Amino acid sequence: MDRILATYRIAASESESRARAQALAIEQSVEMPLEAIGEERILKEVVATVESIRPHAGYFEVVLGIAPATTGNEASQLMNMLFGNCSLQPEVELVDVQFPAGFEQAFPGPRFGIEGLRVLTGVSGRALTCTALKPQGSSVEYLAHLARTFALAGIDVIKDDHGIANQQTHPFAMRVPAVQKAINEANQETGGKTIYAPTFSGGGHSLAGEVQVARDAAVKMALVAPMLIGIPAFVELQADLDIPMMAHPAFAGANRIAPPVLLGKLFRLFGADATIFPNHGGRFSYSRETCMAITQAARAPMPGLRPALPVPAGGMGVERVDEMIASYGIDTMLLVGGGLLMARERLADKARQFVAAVKSHRGA
Amino acid sequence: MDRILATYRIAASESESRARAQALAIEQSVEMPLEAIGEERILKEVVATVESIRPHAGYFEVVLGIAPATTGNEASQLMNMLFGNCSLQPEVELVDVQFPAGFEQAFPGPRFGIEGLRVLTGVSGRALTCTALKPQGSSVEYLAHLARTFALAGIDVIKDDHGIANQQTHPFAMRVPAVQKAINEANQETGGKTIYAPTFSGGGHSLAGEVQVARDAAVKMALVAPMLIGIPAFVELQADLDIPMMAHPAFAGANRIAPPVLLGKLFRLFGADATIFPNHGGRFSYSRETCMAITQAARAPMPGLRPALPVPAGGMGVERVDEMIASYGIDTMLLVGGGLLMARERLADKARQFVAAVKSHRGA
Repeated sequence: MDRILATYRIAASESESRARAQALAIEQSVEMPLEAIGEERILKEVVATVESIRPHAGYFEVVLGIAPATTGNEASQLMNMLFGNCSLQPEVELVDVQFPAGFEQAFPGPRFGIEGLRVLTGVSGRALTCTALKPQGSSVEYLAHLARTFALAGIDVIKDDHGIANQQTHPFAMRVPAVQKAINEANQETGGKTIYAPTFSGGGHSLAGEVQVARDAAVKMALVAPMLIGIPAFVELQADLDIPMMAHPAFAGANRIAPPVLLGKLFRLFGADATIFPNHGGRFSYSRETCMAITQAARAPMPGLRPALPVPAGGMGVERVDEMIASYGIDTMLLVGGGLLMARERLADKARQFVAAVKSHRGA
Repeated sequence: MDRILATYRIAASESESRARAQALAIEQSVEMPLEAIGEERILKEVVATVESIRPHAGYFEVVLGIAPATTGNEASQLMNMLFGNCSLQPEVELVDVQFPAGFEQAFPGPRFGIEGLRVLTGVSGRALTCTALKPQGSSVEYLAHLARTFALAGIDVIKDDHGIANQQTHPFAMRVPAVQKAINEANQETGGKTIYAPTFSGGGHSLAGEVQVARDAAVKMALVAPMLIGIPAFVELQADLDIPMMAHPAFAGANRIAPPVLLGKLFRLFGADATIFPNHGGRFSYSRETCMAITQAARAPMPGLRPALPVPAGGMGVERVDEMIASYGIDTMLLVGGGLLMARERLADKARQFVAAVKSHRGA
């Protein structure tokens, strides 16, 4: 099989670039002096290759060829090969990765993807709507009441705030059945198909318990921060749950991995059906260009992988719906959380406004 | 219980500091406008507090008070509260964290610590020695042969290279029993107590299989990269294995969490008995000051937590043994990997030199 092509940006002078590129190739594969390797096969088949070096002013880009076999077809080991030790070198960034044909078969990819999410929510020809149950520390009754209000207003996906995990005020085992029941009842009243995405968190034992609770309550989507629970746990959780997975970027932003690579391409490879990212002009500093690149990485055709639904978020309001759909198109889910809750006693009206604004934009 | 005190450095002007500090307090707790919160209890008990703001030239430091209950006493949720969303804000760094009395009881901490590792290896009054089996891609037979050579030379801990996971050339289930057997046999010949720390990787299901293999082979230590397998998986693995855990910093370096906080204090809280970090003057750019601060965070008295063994590494050689012990003292494990393998056919001699150099420094 061909090599995995990983592109790194290294802040160092051009004169150093050859030596630095070679050192990176060693660091990200055998991690020992080549002179100490006796076996020809390892030098040829295991050590990463320097495929190209492109100098810029003040930095250079190097493309390494990483042997697919060194990843053991396993998610954490893939991340290790791509960015394990060099994450400790502040001058190195991972800016792109290309997989050889067939490599993606070792990873789940989105099980549902955009089409599957459309089937599940019954939404076609328009963008999807999403909001969040907040704040953490609320009672289960309050969260269930909020969920009912949002579902009656016709929001497509209601997710837990990512800060709502398994705390004492709203333990997963009590919260999830209660919220799912409130949404089921609202759906019966409206004939709607609102779905609930609770936050899964903790280690494998906790996750196994949460899977059981979610199954019993017939939960139809999961919210997970892959960098908090760990990427291999995310991959296993997807297989265990067999419902669409929405990836949350918490704890992910600062690995010096370009956001389109991590939140777009890699999260998709590991099985995210939808990926949340901080939209430009909100509480976070991602540029419009970065946001478009994340969207592109999530949706672009990749052989063997379904497209994932981009979910711009982070301080968005109903007033930005038109502009966001104009930018991202209708294969997008708009997430407005605090922007709805600000309406307080007019929350139901505000949620209906959000739904109506999104419904007014119909695609081809 | 008192609040968790988390100190952040924010690159912003002093005039913005009050507003930025308050915004961070909201981002890292309820993540919604305070005006939209109706319940007094949540405003008082859940929203993070701004405890202090200290301006510097070009940045300021803010101490937030995070309510312990919001962490749900769970490792991934603690990381979420400390650095979940603000990991997406490049201008924010986490530079310190202080836990209230008793908070650490919710987390395992080191089960063995420095004293337990000394008992297990039979080493007192001197620093410990450690080396690595490399390169990835080698045959199981070669790795077992290397391990035998190192054990005969009297190295205390032989770990897998962190890039040796569960790949086809050396699957965990074949490699670990073979290497452990080679070390057992060498120990019988020498009367030594060399221990083996294989790399555990993958999701919960893979880890469960690896735990079984390791138990069957009576493996006495584990090498784990918490940021690759996920912090909550690390915590659960520690409980499942009940052998000392050596934390590897792969994929950890770039979260804009100060290395002493992450590799020292937090990894220790989560159960690392030993923590590897890139020593200054090797292949990585950590300063001497950073390395001393990691060591301090690993070993300093913390109520309820055993001290963890600092393991400076990353391009070290036998010629640095004297200087390293002078700097770090004897409650340290020196890890020399490639620096031994460079000796090739004189590997056994070089390993014995390393052991002798460390043994020549005896503490009080």
